[in-house]
Amino acid sequence: MFTMSQASLPVFEIGLNALSGVLDKAAAYAAAKKVDPSVLMGWRLAPDMYALGRQIQVTCDLAKSSARLAGVEPPKFDDTETTIEQFKERIARTIGFLKTLDGKAIDASSEREITFPLGQNKGQMTGCDYLNHFVLPNFYFHLTAAYAVVRNFGVDVGKRDFIGAIPLKLI
Amino acid sequence: MFTMSQASLPVFEIGLNALSGVLDKAAAYAAAKKVDPSVLMGWRLAPDMYALGRQIQVTCDLAKSSARLAGVEPPKFDDTETTIEQFKERIARTIGFLKTLDGKAIDASSEREITFPLGQNKGQMTGCDYLNHFVLPNFYFHLTAAYAVVRNFGVDVGKRDFIGAIPLKLI
Repeated sequence: MFTMSQASLPVFEIGLNALSGVLDKAAAYAAAKKVDPSVLMGWRLAPDMYALGRQIQVTCDLAKSSARLAGVEPPKFDDTETTIEQFKERIARTIGFLKTLDGKAIDASSEREITFPLGQNKGQMTGCDYLNHFVLPNFYFHLTAAYAVVRNFGVDVGKRDFIGAIPLKLI
Repeated sequence: MFTMSQASLPVFEIGLNALSGVLDKAAAYAAAKKVDPSVLMGWRLAPDMYALGRQIQVTCDLAKSSARLAGVEPPKFDDTETTIEQFKERIARTIGFLKTLDGKAIDASSEREITFPLGQNKGQMTGCDYLNHFVLPNFYFHLTAAYAVVRNFGVDVGKRDFIGAIPLKLI
């Protein structure tokens, strides 16, 4: 069995929890170095790339955009976070929201046309294309960018911190 | 219909083609700035992160690791690339290899235990977990890292260059 809910909900939950753990390590690093957390949240890899705080917001927004597959319009979160605790709270709120979605409705959305806001336009894709070619690549893009900003900042995190608690057996 | 081959093969092909396009822009930028391409391929976001060249190699390797889902051991590519053309060739070779895989065999691998090398150990996961929680997150990690290195280097690429030729209709 391979379902759309399986390829989305646990993927987002694991990734978001991992991001929360990366933020914990980043917060500890900033505290140890006596760096103001706002410097960390404002760090970026290039002048015209999002800063860490915005990367986190968008990662959350991409995860909750999967709600459209369940026929639910994703809730708008205000982008008012400034402290690390608040960003972690947004992540937790996103995970909480994902848990309210009906997995069976997501599974049934493969052929359905999904319409979604895209800049000044609207985008339209079938459910499975929306998941495979829009939500997942964009989610991972911002999740990885957030991790890479933290790494570039100097925090000692590794690939395992990015990957998180996956169902892996070592033999 | 939602299948494992659909959630893997075209995802890798689109992402790898996009990466190849990003490399074209990076090569043009390096030439315009009279920067030796080896400086570009050696660029990294943090001292202990892979340089661009290695990120590209690993992105390709992750994509071809999906062969295990089809019951095929992925071919080992020698890591000898030095020029941008050679890295682009590795990407093209990876896409060519993916086209040889049997989609139906991949689709049937959801419950099968997949065993794969993992550092000094071996990892084991069911087929669907291997795709959702190992191959895809790792593929996107290195694909995004490669893009972010190029962006950090100063090349004028944007999110569309990362996302590539997805089946999106603007309305």
